[in-house]
Amino acid sequence: MVFPVTPMSKKAAQLTGENRLIQILQDRYPGKHPLVNKGIGDDAAVIRPGRAGEYWLITTDMLLENIDFRREWITPGSLGCKSIAVNLSDLAAMGARPRFFTVSLALPQGISERWILDFYDGLTEPGSSRGALLIGGDFSRSASGIVISIAALGESLNGRVIYRSGGRAGDLLYVTGVLGKSAAGLSLLEKGCGRPRSRAKKEAIQSHLRPEPRCEAGLWLAQSGLVRCMMDLSDGLSVDLPRMCAASAVGAEVHTASLPVFSESSFWGCDPVNLALHGGEDFELLFAAPESGADVLERDYPAKLPGITRIGELTRDVGHVWIVEPGKKRSRLPQRGYNHFRRSPHAR
Amino acid sequence: MVFPVTPMSKKAAQLTGENRLIQILQDRYPGKHPLVNKGIGDDAAVIRPGRAGEYWLITTDMLLENIDFRREWITPGSLGCKSIAVNLSDLAAMGARPRFFTVSLALPQGISERWILDFYDGLTEPGSSRGALLIGGDFSRSASGIVISIAALGESLNGRVIYRSGGRAGDLLYVTGVLGKSAAGLSLLEKGCGRPRSRAKKEAIQSHLRPEPRCEAGLWLAQSGLVRCMMDLSDGLSVDLPRMCAASAVGAEVHTASLPVFSESSFWGCDPVNLALHGGEDFELLFAAPESGADVLERDYPAKLPGITRIGELTRDVGHVWIVEPGKKRSRLPQRGYNHFRRSPHAR
Repeated sequence: MVFPVTPMSKKAAQLTGENRLIQILQDRYPGKHPLVNKGIGDDAAVIRPGRAGEYWLITTDMLLENIDFRREWITPGSLGCKSIAVNLSDLAAMGARPRFFTVSLALPQGISERWILDFYDGLTEPGSSRGALLIGGDFSRSASGIVISIAALGESLNGRVIYRSGGRAGDLLYVTGVLGKSAAGLSLLEKGCGRPRSRAKKEAIQSHLRPEPRCEAGLWLAQSGLVRCMMDLSDGLSVDLPRMCAASAVGAEVHTASLPVFSESSFWGCDPVNLALHGGEDFELLFAAPESGADVLERDYPAKLPGITRIGELTRDVGHVWIVEPGKKRSRLPQRGYNHFRRSPHAR
Repeated sequence: MVFPVTPMSKKAAQLTGENRLIQILQDRYPGKHPLVNKGIGDDAAVIRPGRAGEYWLITTDMLLENIDFRREWITPGSLGCKSIAVNLSDLAAMGARPRFFTVSLALPQGISERWILDFYDGLTEPGSSRGALLIGGDFSRSASGIVISIAALGESLNGRVIYRSGGRAGDLLYVTGVLGKSAAGLSLLEKGCGRPRSRAKKEAIQSHLRPEPRCEAGLWLAQSGLVRCMMDLSDGLSVDLPRMCAASAVGAEVHTASLPVFSESSFWGCDPVNLALHGGEDFELLFAAPESGADVLERDYPAKLPGITRIGELTRDVGHVWIVEPGKKRSRLPQRGYNHFRRSPHAR
């Protein structure tokens, strides 16, 4: 069968690697359907099954051994936690409540039943699944490493879903938590320093191995009505911010002095600002809010949630992301973050 | 954190391999929730998102290179077809209409953009996606082969969903289509006979590389009200029928002389009955119907759909599956089908 090939859009033609491919797929498969609010191109797809009262969101993420994790670094329980966390982070990024998930697991020979059950314990721990219920899955044999693929379903609250595409020039740019901590932890693991004594090192490794999805923060931000666009930081600010800018048709400026960096990483030879800009797997939320509501947002945001930090603003300079460093001329932010199509930090 | 470990059920303790693991997971994670009708343990999970009018079903399946397919045997387009087919088959098995799907794709280096787009063309061809819309996904890099993981969503029609568990002793056992054809095709591919001239060989290979999910048949059977339990044949009758028996708490008897075998495979050295009993990946439907409705079922079943054949019956002999061969004493059906935890036919 021959298909009418959609001519490549100007947008797609200007991109490379994974971004280009996603843009081509988005152009070809726009997901036009009365029950679909958003198909390809955001953290999760948004549907209204059977015209249900609320929107339902579906997201999927795959973790591969020696690409996304090393078996010798992580316990099966923590791997379970991390696997569900990366999916819940996508739901958090759109302000949805986690509901259900399925797990496809491919296992090489020699993995014990104990290992598998510990993995499922990690997946389903109330602290990691955040109320989402395991409802199905699939087992396969793998000829090489472990492969984990999760599909997670979430539900909106009061019909409020935040997309990547809602940002406008002039909006203020924020992140939750601390950036570059997970990459700082990874750097320790790569050096063979998996069981450090120092609190900072332990914390960094913990945030790499057991990231915490920002479900409550995402839900609060979506419900506040003060946020115009949001996404999660999985591949690093320098890769993810341009994606948000492209979706919102804006540019951005980031003030490096404002970044909530993990400064302790300098003790083990890392550059905290560099990791905050380019380190992957922080699973913090990146969002933009109109300036008019910023005071209310900063005042009302609950203290018990991971803090929010203003790091810059969205600009009219469509598609361009600049960084402003103290005492330097502003410069283009190079995309050095984690890109699945370039090189993985774990691949040997 | 320490978990209260569910004591292993008697059912789980009697099983081995994948079946045992699934039973343990089903015991531990029963999916009790007002929006969940069925969690782990059937072809798909059944939920009612936001108390939607109809049930929604979610299923997931993973295909791994050199386990489930060989790249040299299959075009990217056919691989796309097959990937979605194995998922739609699970929806068909419960009588649901395909609606949406997401795809996680892990790719080793050296896969071209052309290959990827051809794969998506295969996935989304109207003939293969059967009306299901691609709404999202995820890309990863793979250190070894290609990995494809799909999650598919389906919707019930008139609230009718058929489970594995509804069978009763005395019900008649049926299958759609022909059994052992896919395995006959696989045997040719394994012999290096990928481009045969004979029609039968071509057909066999086609049914292995581009299986057709029985969506229309599954929907008709569910709507007929004449079917009590149903599942799809993915791992072979000798593995799948005991699963249906376990779920329905019945036994079964299969008459080998009645099996709709692919007799042409004997021309290339296969035993058609053996392949019908133990060959995997037929993706035909296995279902049971009360004897009282059998005449109506056989009369009303539409001629345009793949034919149905009565192959035996469900019995009171809980957990035991027997075969009746012409001129022989009836014997236990050994489980020799495809089992993800034993050995894969494609693994070298």
